[in-house]
Amino acid sequence: MTAIDAVPEVPLRRAVLIGLIGEGVTPSLTPPMHELEGARHGMHYVYRTIDLAPGESTEEYVGRLLADARRLGFDGLNVTHPVKQTVLPLLDELAPAARTVGAVNTVVFDGDRMIGHNTDVTGFGAAFDETLGDAPRDLVVLVGAGGAGAAVASALAAREVGELVIADAAPGRAAALAASVAEVSTGRVRSIGTDELAGALADADGVVNATPFGMAAHPGAAFDVGLVPGRAFVADVVYRPVETELLVAARDRGCRVMSGLGMAMHQAADAFEIFTGEPADREAMLADLTDLVAVEASGTTPPWHR
Amino acid sequence: MTAIDAVPEVPLRRAVLIGLIGEGVTPSLTPPMHELEGARHGMHYVYRTIDLAPGESTEEYVGRLLADARRLGFDGLNVTHPVKQTVLPLLDELAPAARTVGAVNTVVFDGDRMIGHNTDVTGFGAAFDETLGDAPRDLVVLVGAGGAGAAVASALAAREVGELVIADAAPGRAAALAASVAEVSTGRVRSIGTDELAGALADADGVVNATPFGMAAHPGAAFDVGLVPGRAFVADVVYRPVETELLVAARDRGCRVMSGLGMAMHQAADAFEIFTGEPADREAMLADLTDLVAVEASGTTPPWHR
Repeated sequence: MTAIDAVPEVPLRRAVLIGLIGEGVTPSLTPPMHELEGARHGMHYVYRTIDLAPGESTEEYVGRLLADARRLGFDGLNVTHPVKQTVLPLLDELAPAARTVGAVNTVVFDGDRMIGHNTDVTGFGAAFDETLGDAPRDLVVLVGAGGAGAAVASALAAREVGELVIADAAPGRAAALAASVAEVSTGRVRSIGTDELAGALADADGVVNATPFGMAAHPGAAFDVGLVPGRAFVADVVYRPVETELLVAARDRGCRVMSGLGMAMHQAADAFEIFTGEPADREAMLADLTDLVAVEASGTTPPWHR
Repeated sequence: MTAIDAVPEVPLRRAVLIGLIGEGVTPSLTPPMHELEGARHGMHYVYRTIDLAPGESTEEYVGRLLADARRLGFDGLNVTHPVKQTVLPLLDELAPAARTVGAVNTVVFDGDRMIGHNTDVTGFGAAFDETLGDAPRDLVVLVGAGGAGAAVASALAAREVGELVIADAAPGRAAALAASVAEVSTGRVRSIGTDELAGALADADGVVNATPFGMAAHPGAAFDVGLVPGRAFVADVVYRPVETELLVAARDRGCRVMSGLGMAMHQAADAFEIFTGEPADREAMLADLTDLVAVEASGTTPPWHR
């Protein structure tokens, strides 16, 4: 018989398992951001993409994926386009940001319960506070009332914007978002048609692009930056590329600018903290994201495109 | 515009995701063995247990789990009692050891295909070669014809045993295993009733216990070691505890002994190599397993019992 004199130390690391559900998620930079941050925490952090095929973005299918993921030991999931609202009825509880915006991008499994969060909202808010926290904002124009626009509007509603003006190529979508944000905003909120955009921009203290214009697949800009006063800030939610046509032109005009990089990093950092309970190193995550975008832009095959 | 002078290096580690499907698998030591070995390879290695409730060990349910695991990004699975045979019709291909024994403990996802392996067979074989490779084996007695017994018989069938005698409390089970092993063995194979065990042991060059006797939940031994000649080897598949009553008594008799630790380590190491394609550090894995068993035996709550 061998006597056990002392209990050995087993250097077992914490294992964290996360997935991302949505259409076209395979090239997302969120998985490598999480895995790199997990490595800094000494964790075994595995972040998988679950790409939805056409027809799979239903409540029934996504509900089954959520149940399967919990059964197979996932700690949580990010969800993205087009199922950020599809998951709402599947969840047991919503955190305030998710409830306000009516969309979820982060689901955490807490025992038998599934809790929904929205770190697009908190992520844009954190990026805004960091970069433009002191910027005047009596009148802010938001261009784009889709999912990203809703997150931006929700974050701005809690940041003492005097008047938020929402424009979208689909006027009904802008009106619906304005109506819902007005309920939670301390300032005024109204929607306009794109024909009124020039007038609104001329008086704006700031403008946020929440359309896909500026991405490689959507070249150009959603509006003419020549209409924006040089004293105004210009923020973009697009971060691939970091330097959109809009931001380059705005900087040339003397505007303060905010790229989409901060929102992309903070949404991942907030989700990391929700999943793990450990504080994210946001400076390091921003450096990683900058590197990841550069690797992707270089045209070499990134190792995270599995 | 920022010029990209050089593509940054992103220190992304390889991520590996594995699960274990079976009844009562939560306390298994295989997950921490894999995760510790993965850490030595610089991987993010996550190994989850999927404990089957009564009624879930059906081909339909397990088939769905396999499909779900592939959909959610698992690289492979171990499967154990009671579904090692249940999975057979679900697989596209069987490796030789799995085909011979008619059971699978390792499933790897290779593109659209699911391939079954049996590292219980190769694991016992490797342990045997290492510890008893030079031992005379004109007559070997195998006690226990369940899943572990089948793996042991299959491994021994390829190791020039003159005659393999299989005993089981259920004579029909022993006969069935003997008939199936006889087809692939170079030596003779026959089954006996437990009433004939004393006679067989008296002439044996070696005996292998493949019953659960010796585990904490099954105290004692499957047979009286006083019946075994001192020149014979005595091997056990039980490894929790490592020092079973059988092995202690056999060593006292002067027998060469082989504990179940080697088989448990090699089955995990073989599966690790199948899952990752990288060579396992078997010496380190054996040290880990020894520590894991000691931690468990100490009565402190092991960190892998999540």
